[in-house]
Parts: sequence; C-alpha cells; structure tokens
Amino acid sequence: MATIFTKIINREIPAHIVAEDENYIAFLDIMPLAKGHVLVVPKLEVDYIFDLKDEVLAGLHVFSKKVAHAMDKTIKCTRIGVAVIGLEVPHVHVHLIPLRSMDDINFSRPKLKLSQEEMTEIAESIKKGFE
Amino acid sequence: MATIFTKIINREIPAHIVAEDENYIAFLDIMPLAKGHVLVVPKLEVDYIFDLKDEVLAGLHVFSKKVAHAMDKTIKCTRIGVAVIGLEVPHVHVHLIPLRSMDDINFSRPKLKLSQEEMTEIAESIKKGFE
Repeated sequence: MATIFTKIINREIPAHIVAEDENYIAFLDIMPLAKGHVLVVPKLEVDYIFDLKDEVLAGLHVFSKKVAHAMDKTIKCTRIGVAVIGLEVPHVHVHLIPLRSMDDINFSRPKLKLSQEEMTEIAESIKKGFE
Repeated sequence: MATIFTKIINREIPAHIVAEDENYIAFLDIMPLAKGHVLVVPKLEVDYIFDLKDEVLAGLHVFSKKVAHAMDKTIKCTRIGVAVIGLEVPHVHVHLIPLRSMDDINFSRPKLKLSQEEMTEIAESIKKGFE
C-alpha cells in the first residue's frame, strides 16, 4: 500500500508543497515542532534512510540543502537543523527544523497548531526562496 | 583557533575513533544519548552544514551510511537516527543515534555516563563492523 508520502507525491492527498524535482519533494510537516518545519522525501518509497543507494542518499541531502537555504532566507531562526528518525511513516523523510536552541529538536514536545492560512503563507514564502 | 573536533582529527586530544578516511572521521560522542552514539565530522572545518559544498555534503552522508551500517550490526536498536544541530561546536557534526523510540532523539534528556572501558568496548565493536 502506498505510504501517505507517496499519496502526497501523487497528489492524492493535499500538502503544502514547497519544492519538488524529478526525484525529491519537500512539504510542510503538518505536526510542526517550529514554524516552517519541512519534510524532504525521496519519491522512491524506501523505509530506512540507510537502505537508500549512495546516489539517492547524496541527492536527498543536496536537495535538502537547497530547501534549507530557502528556509534560512524566509524564516527567523539561528539555523536549520536536520533529523531523520523514521519510526512512524515507513518512507524516508528528512526533517528540516528552524532552530533557536538545542531543545528545538525534541520530538517529545507538544507540536504547534497552525491555521491553514498560516501554513499556506509559510509554504508560499519558502517556495519563493527556493532556487 | 582549531575546534575540538579538529584537535581530535589531529590527534591532539583523545577520542574513541570508530572510522576514518581522507575526508571524514567518526568517533563516539562523549555525552551520549544512547550507547553507541557517534559523531561524524568532515575534516574540513566548516561551521554550518548547509555551507558545505554539494560534494562534501554528499560524501559526509555516504560515509555516515557506512558508519550506520557498522552500528546496525553491533548495537541493539531498531535503527540509527540522524540529527544535525550545530549550535554548540562550530564544526559540522552529524549525530548518529541508536533508536528505539521517537523520544530517543531529545537533546534535553540527561546524557548517559559510561565508563572508559564501556566506551572502548563499544568503539571497538563498531570499528570491527566498519567496512
């Protein structure tokens, strides 16, 4: 069965997409740890990041760097942090999280609740910054 | 001034090194979130991961994958998680953390205190698994 991320890639369910190319897609996490929390996903449906072939893994991080630069331009933060956990959805996803302190990467924290309008606004601003 | 990681690379201060090549080095984090928590560091001294050139960034993650495979072989865990924060030491470092639950990546948690003997034993077992 297709993962929720494959359904987003196939436009079967909606998402706030901020960047996309032939092999990767980036969209807002619907349970953000911070405003502008993005997930970057390879279109290839693989569960564990370290099962990706070297070139897909390398491309995923180079694509994530472009997304992070767009985020750095548009979101107030010290820098963009990276996390890959992968115990929930069985489809590789890189969390890009705007950081201000070490504690900002803490998945035990309550998630933010943002309105659709806020999510759309954030997504549009990152999308504009993406080269 | 050289970062603490450059001093480890130059063998000016000791570390439990588990893998090394021309461009990257991996050693045990001295304040581990879990047994076998490893840091992977490019030998080039750059502060922010997204300032790395594409090929250095790609190489860092491909090297991390090899280290993670060695960890998967030798450490009891569900999988290896990845985190890059970088608000403390101004030299890029990828955290590779043996995970059992989402909460295992939480830098607010108290760190483990392991003896030198335990650290040496863990480092040796990962080193043996590294290809």
